[in-house]
Amino acid sequence: MKTLIQNGNIVTAVDNFTADVLIDGSTIAAIGAHLPAQNVDKIIDANGMLVIPGGIDNHTHLDMPFGGTTSADDFESGTRAAAFGGTTSIVDFAIQTRGGKVQDGLEAWWKKADGKACIDYGLHMIVTDLSEGSTDPDKALASMDSVVREGVTSFKLFMAYPGVLMVDDGTIFKALSQTAKNGALICMHAENGNAIDVIVKRAIAEGKTAPIYHALTRPTTAEGEAVHRAIALAEMAGAPIYIVHLSSNEALEKVAEARDRGVMAYAETCPQYLLLSLEDMEKMPDFEGAKVVFTPPLREKWNQEKLWEGLRMNTLQVVSTDHCPFCFKEQKELGRGDFTKIPNGGPGIENRLQLLFEHGVNKKRISVNRWVEITSTTPAKMFGLYPRKGTIAVGSDADIVIWDPNQEHVLSAKTHHMRVDYSMFEGWKIKGNAKIVLSRGEVIVDNGQWKGRAGRGEFIKRATYAGAWK
Amino acid sequence: MKTLIQNGNIVTAVDNFTADVLIDGSTIAAIGAHLPAQNVDKIIDANGMLVIPGGIDNHTHLDMPFGGTTSADDFESGTRAAAFGGTTSIVDFAIQTRGGKVQDGLEAWWKKADGKACIDYGLHMIVTDLSEGSTDPDKALASMDSVVREGVTSFKLFMAYPGVLMVDDGTIFKALSQTAKNGALICMHAENGNAIDVIVKRAIAEGKTAPIYHALTRPTTAEGEAVHRAIALAEMAGAPIYIVHLSSNEALEKVAEARDRGVMAYAETCPQYLLLSLEDMEKMPDFEGAKVVFTPPLREKWNQEKLWEGLRMNTLQVVSTDHCPFCFKEQKELGRGDFTKIPNGGPGIENRLQLLFEHGVNKKRISVNRWVEITSTTPAKMFGLYPRKGTIAVGSDADIVIWDPNQEHVLSAKTHHMRVDYSMFEGWKIKGNAKIVLSRGEVIVDNGQWKGRAGRGEFIKRATYAGAWK
Amino acid sequence: MKTLIQNGNIVTAVDNFTADVLIDGSTIAAIGAHLPAQNVDKIIDANGMLVIPGGIDNHTHLDMPFGGTTSADDFESGTRAAAFGGTTSIVDFAIQTRGGKVQDGLEAWWKKADGKACIDYGLHMIVTDLSEGSTDPDKALASMDSVVREGVTSFKLFMAYPGVLMVDDGTIFKALSQTAKNGALICMHAENGNAIDVIVKRAIAEGKTAPIYHALTRPTTAEGEAVHRAIALAEMAGAPIYIVHLSSNEALEKVAEARDRGVMAYAETCPQYLLLSLEDMEKMPDFEGAKVVFTPPLREKWNQEKLWEGLRMNTLQVVSTDHCPFCFKEQKELGRGDFTKIPNGGPGIENRLQLLFEHGVNKKRISVNRWVEITSTTPAKMFGLYPRKGTIAVGSDADIVIWDPNQEHVLSAKTHHMRVDYSMFEGWKIKGNAKIVLSRGEVIVDNGQWKGRAGRGEFIKRATYAGAWK
Amino acid sequence: MKTLIQNGNIVTAVDNFTADVLIDGSTIAAIGAHLPAQNVDKIIDANGMLVIPGGIDNHTHLDMPFGGTTSADDFESGTRAAAFGGTTSIVDFAIQTRGGKVQDGLEAWWKKADGKACIDYGLHMIVTDLSEGSTDPDKALASMDSVVREGVTSFKLFMAYPGVLMVDDGTIFKALSQTAKNGALICMHAENGNAIDVIVKRAIAEGKTAPIYHALTRPTTAEGEAVHRAIALAEMAGAPIYIVHLSSNEALEKVAEARDRGVMAYAETCPQYLLLSLEDMEKMPDFEGAKVVFTPPLREKWNQEKLWEGLRMNTLQVVSTDHCPFCFKEQKELGRGDFTKIPNGGPGIENRLQLLFEHGVNKKRISVNRWVEITSTTPAKMFGLYPRKGTIAVGSDADIVIWDPNQEHVLSAKTHHMRVDYSMFEGWKIKGNAKIVLSRGEVIVDNGQWKGRAGRGEFIKRATYAGAWK
Repeated sequence: MKTLIQNGNIVTAVDNFTADVLIDGSTIAAIGAHLPAQNVDKIIDANGMLVIPGGIDNHTHLDMPFGGTTSADDFESGTRAAAFGGTTSIVDFAIQTRGGKVQDGLEAWWKKADGKACIDYGLHMIVTDLSEGSTDPDKALASMDSVVREGVTSFKLFMAYPGVLMVDDGTIFKALSQTAKNGALICMHAENGNAIDVIVKRAIAEGKTAPIYHALTRPTTAEGEAVHRAIALAEMAGAPIYIVHLSSNEALEKVAEARDRGVMAYAETCPQYLLLSLEDMEKMPDFEGAKVVFTPPLREKWNQEKLWEGLRMNTLQVVSTDHCPFCFKEQKELGRGDFTKIPNGGPGIENRLQLLFEHGVNKKRISVNRWVEITSTTPAKMFGLYPRKGTIAVGSDADIVIWDPNQEHVLSAKTHHMRVDYSMFEGWKIKGNAKIVLSRGEVIVDNGQWKGRAGRGEFIKRATYAGAWK
Repeated sequence: MKTLIQNGNIVTAVDNFTADVLIDGSTIAAIGAHLPAQNVDKIIDANGMLVIPGGIDNHTHLDMPFGGTTSADDFESGTRAAAFGGTTSIVDFAIQTRGGKVQDGLEAWWKKADGKACIDYGLHMIVTDLSEGSTDPDKALASMDSVVREGVTSFKLFMAYPGVLMVDDGTIFKALSQTAKNGALICMHAENGNAIDVIVKRAIAEGKTAPIYHALTRPTTAEGEAVHRAIALAEMAGAPIYIVHLSSNEALEKVAEARDRGVMAYAETCPQYLLLSLEDMEKMPDFEGAKVVFTPPLREKWNQEKLWEGLRMNTLQVVSTDHCPFCFKEQKELGRGDFTKIPNGGPGIENRLQLLFEHGVNKKRISVNRWVEITSTTPAKMFGLYPRKGTIAVGSDADIVIWDPNQEHVLSAKTHHMRVDYSMFEGWKIKGNAKIVLSRGEVIVDNGQWKGRAGRGEFIKRATYAGAWK
Repeated sequence: MKTLIQNGNIVTAVDNFTADVLIDGSTIAAIGAHLPAQNVDKIIDANGMLVIPGGIDNHTHLDMPFGGTTSADDFESGTRAAAFGGTTSIVDFAIQTRGGKVQDGLEAWWKKADGKACIDYGLHMIVTDLSEGSTDPDKALASMDSVVREGVTSFKLFMAYPGVLMVDDGTIFKALSQTAKNGALICMHAENGNAIDVIVKRAIAEGKTAPIYHALTRPTTAEGEAVHRAIALAEMAGAPIYIVHLSSNEALEKVAEARDRGVMAYAETCPQYLLLSLEDMEKMPDFEGAKVVFTPPLREKWNQEKLWEGLRMNTLQVVSTDHCPFCFKEQKELGRGDFTKIPNGGPGIENRLQLLFEHGVNKKRISVNRWVEITSTTPAKMFGLYPRKGTIAVGSDADIVIWDPNQEHVLSAKTHHMRVDYSMFEGWKIKGNAKIVLSRGEVIVDNGQWKGRAGRGEFIKRATYAGAWK
Repeated sequence: MKTLIQNGNIVTAVDNFTADVLIDGSTIAAIGAHLPAQNVDKIIDANGMLVIPGGIDNHTHLDMPFGGTTSADDFESGTRAAAFGGTTSIVDFAIQTRGGKVQDGLEAWWKKADGKACIDYGLHMIVTDLSEGSTDPDKALASMDSVVREGVTSFKLFMAYPGVLMVDDGTIFKALSQTAKNGALICMHAENGNAIDVIVKRAIAEGKTAPIYHALTRPTTAEGEAVHRAIALAEMAGAPIYIVHLSSNEALEKVAEARDRGVMAYAETCPQYLLLSLEDMEKMPDFEGAKVVFTPPLREKWNQEKLWEGLRMNTLQVVSTDHCPFCFKEQKELGRGDFTKIPNGGPGIENRLQLLFEHGVNKKRISVNRWVEITSTTPAKMFGLYPRKGTIAVGSDADIVIWDPNQEHVLSAKTHHMRVDYSMFEGWKIKGNAKIVLSRGEVIVDNGQWKGRAGRGEFIKRATYAGAWK
């Protein structure tokens, strides 16, 4: 099966030129001017379109249990929605149960994805307990090596959520030391959970139970502190570190300061932190604020331009979504009267490329190359998907998006493909959208029509972190 | 004329894959796996080789008058030497004479290049006198707009060399303000010339006349100060700024601090600052130190790793050469007994890619992609040569280097192609060299044989600085 | 003549206790509990009062020519007004005329003060021309040494006012190098005059002639840049440096950064920068803004708290006034229709202690000890007046203020003693005022009555800067 | 009882003048020139001597249990040794037992001091368990308020020693929040104990058991991290914070950065960090290194000048000793073959003023006023002893040291008064020593003779932290 994409404006993290792309089977065979169309099975006219590598969202939570409920998108609905938005790979988070084995967590997530994933996926492993319930306090260190060999080459640790997911600094340091040897990359949820816990309990005791208090009880200093600590522990361990969902300038400054000293500290942010603010949340009536209850919370508006600057200057290298949807009516509702019971998370897997194109590229904050870089190329390189994913190059998987830069549309829960009853960006106008989406050479979205199928997505054995990847 | 480069390892600033490259005439027509070889005029076997975009050296001084003599390489010998080292474009510096017209400086340099340049070249314009000798103190501002329209889209100003090239802060600010409007980029030689001048005169008065005093009379604080000032002036003018030949950690910190605040400050360094040190100079006997008399001077060795870190973290974006050779025997000799009379400059146009491959890529300080980026892609984008130059992409000029990563050779004045009687890196062993060099599709270097000819190089009308180029 | 001050609350930069102070002649003889009152000529009841060392204002411009007019207070009216506000010493600025001799400038200022000064005074010397009009470009360096021997142990240089007072970086560096040897201290007016000049001319060309444009044409970046440069030059010269009238956070950060590295950088601010803002100026109708035209100008309001923080943390060590009054009706008027012709300066010599007591001590921003330290003790130590001045200690001059912390009064041009027709703080309510003021043991202000006389003030031969004074 | 100290050079944190001091009973009655000697019981000739406020050592561990042994000095021997060195007040650390009550810890320490203390003493309280062994996790917060009312107005928390003294960030944050209300000051031992614990266990597992590994397993990054975290927690709580025994530049930078932002962060260092280094320790043969095993450990030598700079610039406000002596022969010996069993601590209570006079004042690193400030005045103000202690002022306790600036002596375990069999500064030559020491008007040391007695020292009820004490 050969497909020829003609006359598109091919955009990679560095280049931008008009040419044809020939796909042979699942990979890219050639890029050229006026490639011969004979012996080609399918021709796609990409005139006036951008031809970009499919987006890679390295931070999603599909089918994830949280506070007695489960995130609304499973691997089928979630990866389908991703595809509609131009994302052709995800890296989701498997979770080690406290007292359970790392490998069991991995198996559980494979099961969740099996027969459902519509696009290729990798898995990070959330480590919550180094003992794995055994008497050996460090048993899981060997398990970490083991899953790395299976292609799970990154881990996530929590400095927040004490008693649930949080691990102490000794555990963090041990895990970092292990990755310094096995080549994996630690992702860190960086907030000082213990201090926040005290503040939260005070708020509840004072009857401050509305959604807005979720945001007001998690100060940016608690994030900045934890980012600084995570980096310090990584420096001592001689390991790289990757801060997830960085939300505030105070945290950003810690990353910048470390990078200026040559430390291998990396960070991602998410569209919600770039585009929504605490001030927006404060305007939301009644219990509506629960829609934007996630962690870290929304910040004061002035932080947004600082994050955009961080993206421009490469202090932030990636934009992921932290997609973790809960329906407003049934799930977010659990926390009415007590914000601590609101399931944490928001939907976003479908809108990342759209939002960044409109508010990044169209608004001239970032170039179209940088847009590709932060949504696809760097995630691919950082998490060992490259060169299979993350670029348009000969031999790479034909995960390609034909992007219409001029299509005008409106984001809405009524029309989106995520299985959740609200949009954080309801009514927002966007110019630019995925028109045709190919995954390993197969068209899975065609002008708004779903052409893919559940289960076609494959687990990606990822390589280890590339070290000095740049 | 069609050329097919087969089976090379194609390396761009972002990608790295094995494929063929088809050249049709002067540009790249296709990149693909096993491209058909029929109808092809020439086949180059690149098996085991890297196929990279030709290097771009945006800081050279060919045929430049300095202190009563002229730099030893003219546009013929200099560009030929460049090509041997894998560099296929340069941007040289035309100079406005004090009291003379900007346009006259440009014409003079065109004349120097005409019939001589072996590879394509652009020109920056050094502005020394805004009045152009007229009664209008700002006459040259319009001339700046004029040369921008002719493709000279960057300028250089000096904060050093008082009475010769130095301009005051008012002039700098006016020029920056003009580029904020016309889109050009100001390159800055950043050293506090007035303070240095006092220190130099003291040294001479104290009988400190040996070459080493050239280095000892130019403290890093004088560089750091000027870098900070240049950036502050650019901020006030709302213009980007590009610091040339940054040599010290103290200066680097100023760039980092500005970038952390989101300021459009860029900087290059040169191989000599990455690889040679003040300590090396101190060991050179007799008058030998004159070989490394250039400005800024060599710094204490510990600065080197800081500069490498800056390259890795993108605080430094470019490595150029500041190639400005003077023969040791006849020219450097002018300053025996008085270091202030030593012509400032050193030879390097031929060795940049070699040195950075050996000490960057082979020593694992930077990736091979980053090597391409800092020596070709970013210079092309920063100075408006992209997309014609700086990448391997369909439609781009076929300025391509077939790089043998395994060729072992030794740098030496006996074998190099620069017209100068010494090498700053005499006897250094290198693994990696340009094997075949193509300029606009034409093989100009073939396994150490010169196949090009003087005058084939064309003047490149450059686009204006791309703004948020990333 | 013996005077006994009974039962006052004695406040020094460090202490705070209730005791009597016995003055014998011009100096303090004893401090004790219930000192014997026999043989005492005069008893002052200080019950409920603070007994503080007289204020020292080390930045005044009395009888100073500027732009075709002269500052409204001469040494008589100015020092009398100072005394009313609790200031018992000043250090004024003598000016070397361009082309003239340093010594001539000093003699001119002695003449201005002679027979007029009501309190003791020192002089700094403003150096404008190192050649002193001779063919020796460095002639004034020896003159600097000479005036140091006469007790003029500090100099002022201007980085602003090109063509009038500004000197270039070479001159600054030479002067700093000279003080590194002779022990004097350089005071710096730090603004990038050349850049500002360009901005000012543009504004005038665009018809922006109102007073507010004085402020809008002098960006904080121009101040921050110059502060950074001044400190860098001082570092290279191995000399301390003192930044005068620091007005903005951007400048403050440069001082903090230098001090964090252990550099001997000091700075003062003035009450107008702590208490008035650009926003205040923007509200002033018609030409009223001319009342607050001085240099540096007023800044955005948020800078104020940063300056208070700087005072608290000792990044700023001194508060002086930069007293340089011009009458609104006749003098400021010169600049109607052209802000560049408004004489630069404002009145303040009388109100410094009052304003800092109300807005510093009463508002709990600084302790009463810190109030004494920044207005008296540190100026005395920094400028070589200590131990004669600046403290309440045995053997020191009895320059003592009996301060009523509870006296409520209103600042107004109608009641102040400065010879100027407006107050920058008209109508401001203050709690706390000087009740009785002694100079060398002599009561010169007694409950609002003037008891001093012109000419009683003496020139103070100052010691050189104390080096590591703390 | 009246004592007259004649003709001494009185030195306070700010002043320096020659006068007599009259003591009436336990306090200072007068300071004056040639005070009348009639009715005076005792005359001390201080001609050629400095007359300074007695030193205050706010960090001592007398009679402290540690690792199965007890620090070698009890309140008698320790305070007597202090007095010999010119220290007339201490603040020692009472310890709450895990599971025990705060008040019980306080009572235990009162008992230790009772009948033994030779000089006045205060107590800090080390909090180890907020539950006090009860079911109320926050019970001790009220106990903190309670001891504050008894004059114990500062607490110490440990971020190191997990399982023994360490508390988690939630506890720290709660305690800081409590002091934000009750006005006390939290002292912090800032090292990341969990990370260090991992490193220590690795070292032991690798057979690295010698004393030097105590130092090598506690990286400066672990200290810098904890200092940053402690300050962040204090900022969030709105409380001041005081870092004890700061030892490295990395930690110092965190304090400087916080203070530059206006944060109420304070820090002390100790003579051992200013004067001894890791390099010194590495040279110590056999098990000798155990003599300098304390926490934080000795650092690389280059840190020393940074700490001196911090003292000069007031980034560090205090020098205390952390006196915690263990005899080399019997106590340090416990850790032969396992550095983790070496009792942590070193002797220093007697030598602080001597070492800082020699290496600070004599070596011109700090002024004599600053010497008094960092060893007496600031400790007094910071910890609520002022104005009773910390200065020479009318009404203050006559805790006075007659200091001979010219006395030459040699530090040695053979001659010192501390009850420990070694000196960390054995054989060091010092110029300057306490000649006569008065405590509340009573001579307790007279030319090397002990005149005091056990039990005369009183517990000092301290005031709460003064807030903006400067």
